[in-house]
Amino acid sequence: MSISIEFPDGSKKPFDDGVNVLDVAKSISTSLGKKAIAGKFNGELVDLDRPLKQDGKLAILTNQDADALVVLNDTAAFILAAVLKQTYPKMHFGEGHSTADGFFYDTDNADGQVTVNDLSTLKEKMMQLIKANGEIKRVLVSKDTLLKEFAGDPYKESLINAQAGVEVPAFQLGDFIDFGYRALLKKAGEAKVFDLLSVAGAYWQGKSSNPMLQRIYGTAFYKQADLDADLKRRSEIKERDHRTLGRELDLFFVDPKVGAGLPYWMPNGATIRRTIERYIIDREVAAGYEHVYTPVLANLDLYKQSGHWDHYRDDMFPPMDMGDGEMLELRPMNCPSHIQIYQHHLRSYRELPIRIAELGMMHRYEKSGALSGLQRVREMTLNDGHTFVRPDQIQDEFKNILKLMMSVYDDFDITDYTFRLSYRDPQNTEKYFDDDEMWNKSQAMLKGAMDDLGLDYYEAEGEAAFYGPKLDVQTKTALGNDETLSTIQLDFMMPEKFHLVYTGEDGEEHRPVMIHRGVISTMERFIAYLTEIYKGAFPTWLAPTQVDIIPVNLDLHVKYAETIQKQLLAEGIRVKIDKRNEKMGYKIREAQTQKIPYTLVVGDQEVEDATVSVRPYSADKPEKEDLNVFLDSVVAEVHNYSRTGKKNKAEAKLDK
Amino acid sequence: MSISIEFPDGSKKPFDDGVNVLDVAKSISTSLGKKAIAGKFNGELVDLDRPLKQDGKLAILTNQDADALVVLNDTAAFILAAVLKQTYPKMHFGEGHSTADGFFYDTDNADGQVTVNDLSTLKEKMMQLIKANGEIKRVLVSKDTLLKEFAGDPYKESLINAQAGVEVPAFQLGDFIDFGYRALLKKAGEAKVFDLLSVAGAYWQGKSSNPMLQRIYGTAFYKQADLDADLKRRSEIKERDHRTLGRELDLFFVDPKVGAGLPYWMPNGATIRRTIERYIIDREVAAGYEHVYTPVLANLDLYKQSGHWDHYRDDMFPPMDMGDGEMLELRPMNCPSHIQIYQHHLRSYRELPIRIAELGMMHRYEKSGALSGLQRVREMTLNDGHTFVRPDQIQDEFKNILKLMMSVYDDFDITDYTFRLSYRDPQNTEKYFDDDEMWNKSQAMLKGAMDDLGLDYYEAEGEAAFYGPKLDVQTKTALGNDETLSTIQLDFMMPEKFHLVYTGEDGEEHRPVMIHRGVISTMERFIAYLTEIYKGAFPTWLAPTQVDIIPVNLDLHVKYAETIQKQLLAEGIRVKIDKRNEKMGYKIREAQTQKIPYTLVVGDQEVEDATVSVRPYSADKPEKEDLNVFLDSVVAEVHNYSRTGKKNKAEAKLDK
Repeated sequence: MSISIEFPDGSKKPFDDGVNVLDVAKSISTSLGKKAIAGKFNGELVDLDRPLKQDGKLAILTNQDADALVVLNDTAAFILAAVLKQTYPKMHFGEGHSTADGFFYDTDNADGQVTVNDLSTLKEKMMQLIKANGEIKRVLVSKDTLLKEFAGDPYKESLINAQAGVEVPAFQLGDFIDFGYRALLKKAGEAKVFDLLSVAGAYWQGKSSNPMLQRIYGTAFYKQADLDADLKRRSEIKERDHRTLGRELDLFFVDPKVGAGLPYWMPNGATIRRTIERYIIDREVAAGYEHVYTPVLANLDLYKQSGHWDHYRDDMFPPMDMGDGEMLELRPMNCPSHIQIYQHHLRSYRELPIRIAELGMMHRYEKSGALSGLQRVREMTLNDGHTFVRPDQIQDEFKNILKLMMSVYDDFDITDYTFRLSYRDPQNTEKYFDDDEMWNKSQAMLKGAMDDLGLDYYEAEGEAAFYGPKLDVQTKTALGNDETLSTIQLDFMMPEKFHLVYTGEDGEEHRPVMIHRGVISTMERFIAYLTEIYKGAFPTWLAPTQVDIIPVNLDLHVKYAETIQKQLLAEGIRVKIDKRNEKMGYKIREAQTQKIPYTLVVGDQEVEDATVSVRPYSADKPEKEDLNVFLDSVVAEVHNYSRTGKKNKAEAKLDK
Repeated sequence: MSISIEFPDGSKKPFDDGVNVLDVAKSISTSLGKKAIAGKFNGELVDLDRPLKQDGKLAILTNQDADALVVLNDTAAFILAAVLKQTYPKMHFGEGHSTADGFFYDTDNADGQVTVNDLSTLKEKMMQLIKANGEIKRVLVSKDTLLKEFAGDPYKESLINAQAGVEVPAFQLGDFIDFGYRALLKKAGEAKVFDLLSVAGAYWQGKSSNPMLQRIYGTAFYKQADLDADLKRRSEIKERDHRTLGRELDLFFVDPKVGAGLPYWMPNGATIRRTIERYIIDREVAAGYEHVYTPVLANLDLYKQSGHWDHYRDDMFPPMDMGDGEMLELRPMNCPSHIQIYQHHLRSYRELPIRIAELGMMHRYEKSGALSGLQRVREMTLNDGHTFVRPDQIQDEFKNILKLMMSVYDDFDITDYTFRLSYRDPQNTEKYFDDDEMWNKSQAMLKGAMDDLGLDYYEAEGEAAFYGPKLDVQTKTALGNDETLSTIQLDFMMPEKFHLVYTGEDGEEHRPVMIHRGVISTMERFIAYLTEIYKGAFPTWLAPTQVDIIPVNLDLHVKYAETIQKQLLAEGIRVKIDKRNEKMGYKIREAQTQKIPYTLVVGDQEVEDATVSVRPYSADKPEKEDLNVFLDSVVAEVHNYSRTGKKNKAEAKLDK
C-alpha cells in the first residue's frame, strides 16, 4: 500500500504506508533530513518518528518555524521532568508542557517542595542529561504500564485515566517515560539553550478547591542570542510589572486563600487611589457631572430588563436568593443604576445634558486562572459616567467628554495614545439598532467633532456595538500591549429598554440618547497602568510619601525636622521623618528604593541657614535649598499635578 | 356547673359556666359594667361577649388600661374595612388591625386604588357609621360562610384557609363581618375619636415577590386631647423624619422594586456624604490612621475562622458558589479584612499601635419589613477602624480614640451624648474570655482614662461582650430614641483566632490587643441622624448647595453673578446661579425650601457698590454686605466646619 503526501509547494509524492516523518524529510534532501525538527501533518504537530498512515498534507518544520519553539519547549519540560523524577523519587507530577512564553511543569513533593533555590542544581542536572544527548523515542504504551510507571501519583493517575484508547502515545529517554506531548525533539542535545526561571504556586487543574502544586517555569530557544534577549525582556517586564512594583512599594496584595481576584490595597496604594479618586471627582464635578452613590446590589430583574442577564450572564456573579422571593445580584455594570437616578425625576429638555457619575464598584466573574494583580480582578471600581442628551446635543457633549479626557491624561502625563472611531457596517445595517437616521447623524457628529478639534483618528467600519457608534482611546502599556484607556459609547438601545423620556419644548415625550464614558477606567486597571508607565516612581502629587526627612543626628536635628514637617502637613503634603536608629546612608538608600520624590537631609548647617539638603528621586546628589523656596515649590508642584509645564497642554491645544 | 374567676386583687368568685365578660363586670359594680371595654382572661385579650368556660384569672379593662387602645384601634380598623367594603364592593382585603402606633388595613382595588385624596371621604363615612352606634357582635361562623362573604378575594381566602378549626370567631356590624381580631368594642359609637393618616404601598405578607397592596393608616384614641397630641407629635416627627426630608431635599431614595434596603444617593445626598467621607478620612489620617481599601467579598472560610459564620449567620447574605470550589461571601464586618492587612507584614513592638481604617462597605441581611430609609439598610459603609496595640498601650490609645471622637462630634455640633462603660459580670467571670489579668487591667485602664479626661460616665457590670470591655457613646435622636453614636470595643479574642503576633523587645512573639472603633458609624445611619438633628438645614460646610445667587434681572445682572460664582468656585464653595425664567420671590422661597445656607440677590445697587444682598437660611430679611467680606466669611465658615466658636470646644477642653 502507498499513501500520497502533499507538500506546502503543492507537489505530491507517493510513500509507503507507515513511512515516518524523518524519512519523508530525508527523501526530499539530506540537509532537510538533518534540519528537520518535527512535522505538521494535516495541521497537527507530529514528531519525526510518527508513522504516516493516510494521505495528507505535510510540512517539515525546522528551527526557523514558529512551531519549532513549541517542540523545543515541550522537550525542555520533558527533560525537566526526567531530572525531577531522578532527583526526587517520591515526587508527584501534574501537567507540564510548553506555553506561549516558555514551558512549565507542576510538581508536588512530600519530601520538601522545590523552591527557587533549587533551580540552579536542577538546571545543572538538566545540562548533564542534555550533554549525554540520548535519543528521545516515541513509544505507544498501555495505560497499565503508565499507571505502574507513575504508581501512587494521584495527578498522573488522573491524567492517564483521562486518556482515550488503550494505548497512549508517550516519549521515552533512557528509563524516563512521559506522555501528553504532540512532538518532541529526537535528540536531547538539541535542547541545550534553556533556563529555569521561577517557581510559583498553581492549583491542580486551576481550581482553588484543589491542592496547590509548585509550578516550575523555564524557557528554551535554539540560539543563545534569543535566550539572552528573552531574559533581558523578562527582566525589564519584571522591573515594570505592577505586581512586582506593587510588592516592592507595598501598594497592594492579592491572596487567593481569602479571595481570588480581590485586591487588598495597603496604605501606600490606598493613598494613591484616594488621591486619584478625589482628583477625578473634582474634575468631573467642575465639568458639570453630578456624582452619586448607588448600591452594588440590585434585584436581578433590573439586569433582566437591561439585557445583561441574557447576554452577559457568564461574566456575572451567581444571584443570591434572599428568601422572600427576591433575587439580588452583584452588578456587572453601573448603567442600570444611573438610569434609576435619571428616572427618579421627570426630566425636561432644559435640563439636558444630565451627567451622572460615580466611582461605581462592580463585580465580574472571571476564571481564577485569568486573574492577575490589579489588571484582571473580580471586584473593581469604575470611574463611570453616563450623560443623557438630546439627539441634537450629541456632538457638543462628545466634545466635552473628549476635552475632559485629554485634559486628564495630560495631568497624568499620558501622551502616547490614538483614537479609533467605530461605525456600523454599512453593508449590514440590519445587524444594528434600527434607526438609520440616528446612526448616520451621530456617526457624522462624532467625525465632525474630531475634525473640529483637529484630532487624528482611525475609522473602523463594522466595529461598532449593536447599540451605537463609539470612540476608543488606545494606548500601549509599558510592556507594549494594546490597552483601551477610555471609551465614549453612544447608546440608543438602553433608553428604549428603560422607556427613558424627557419632555421636549413641544410638551411631548422624547427619548434621550445615553452616552457611556469612563475617563480613567477602573481604579485597579488605571493604577496598574500608571505603576508600569511610571516604573513605580509616582509623580509627587500621587506619591504615597512625598517628602522624607532624615535628621543627621536624632538628638540634635529632630526638632528642626519637625518644624518642616508641620509646615508641610499644613499644606497637605504627605511627609514623614525617619527617626529610626539606622545609618543615614541606609535611610537615604531606602528612600530611593521606595521612590520617594524628595528626601531632605537636615543637619547643623541646615538648621543654621534655614535650608534643606534636597535629593529628588534618582538624582545623584543633593542640592541645598532655602527652606521656604523648597516649601513653595513642592506645594506648587502638587497643585500643578507635577506637570513639567505650568499649563495643561491638552487644554491649551483644544481651547486654541 | 360553675367556674371560679380570680380577680387582679386576688379575690375569687364563682360564676355560671359560660358567663360572659360583660356580665362578670356588671356583677362587680354597675359602673364597671358601664366602663368595661374588654377583658384579659389568663393573659389573653377577650371581648365583652366572650363566654368564659373554665376557671381563670380575669381583669376587666377600661379605657385607662394600655390594652384598651389595642381594642379601640382594632375596632377602628374594623370600621374602616366596613366602610371600604360598602364604598368599593369589588375591593380585596389583606390584613388589618391595630399596631403599636395606630391601625391599618391593606386593600387592593381593581377599580382604582385608594389614594390619600380619598381619606377625607372615607373618614366622613366612618363618622356616619360610628354615629349610628350599631352593636358590634361576636359571632362564630363557619369557614364556608366567611369564604362566601369574601368570595373572589384571594387574600382573605388565604387568611380564612389558614384559620384553625371549622368555626372562626368573627365580629359583625350590620351586614359586615370580619375576623382576625381578639376583642372589639361593643358599640361602634365608642370609636369616634380617630383620624385617617396616610396611604402607602405594602407587599402582601411583607414579601417583595407578592403583589403590592395599598395600606391605609389611621390612629384612634378615647379622648380628643390625646388624638390632638398624637397628631402634633406625628407632624413633628414627619418634619424631622430623614425619609421625609430626604425626599424634600432630594438626598436619596429607596425603591424596593430594584432592591429593598439599598439606598440610591441623589447628587445632593452624595455631596453631603462625600464631604463627610473626606472630612473623616482627613481627620483620621492626621490622627495616625492608615486608610486602606479592602474587598467587600471574601472566601467564606475567613468568616468561619473569625466566628461570624457560626454566630452571626442569620445576619449574613447567602454565600455565592463560584463553581471552582470557592464560596464567596459579602462581608458582614470589616475586622477580618483589616486583620489581613495587619498580617501581611511581620510587626514589631516599635510599630504599634498600628491603626488601620477604611470606609468599609458591608452587607447585612435584615428582613425587608425591618428596613427603613437610611436607618436600617442592607448595604452600608462604615467609618471603621481597628487599632492593634500592646497591652500596655490600651489606655493611651483609648484616650486617643476618645479625643478624636469628641473633637469630631464638636465639628458636627453634636453635644448631647453620654458615656457608658461596659464591664464583665464579676460574679460570672467564666462567661467571658478567659484572661482575668487582661480584664482587670484593661477595665481599670478604661476607667482611669475617663477619669483622667474628667468625663462623666455610667458603669454597667455584666454588659460587656464575651471578648472584652467597651465604651458606648449614647445619644438621643431628634425623635427621642436612644442611639449608639460610637463604640470603642476592646477585643482579646479575634487576635487569638487569627494568631496575631508582634515581635516584642525581647525578640519573642507577643499577642496584640485589637480595638474596634467607629467614630461616626455608617454613612447611612450618621447622615440619617444628622438630617434629623439639623431638621434638614445642614450647616454651610455640609450643605449640598452652599450659596444660591439670584440675579434680579437675567439680562442685566447675570454677569456680576457669574463673577461672584467664579470667585466662590475657586475657593471650593458649592454655588449655583438661578437663571430660570421665574419670579424672584418664587426663587427666594425655593432657596429657603431647599434650606440653602446663603441666598444672594444681586441687582443694580449691588453691581454698583460691589456688594451682595445676603439672606441666610431662615432669616426674615436680607442684609447688604461687601462682596469681599461675604466671600471671606463664607470661606472661613466652611474651613471652620461652621462652628459658632472658632475653636473646637471638645479639643480645647480635653487638652487643657
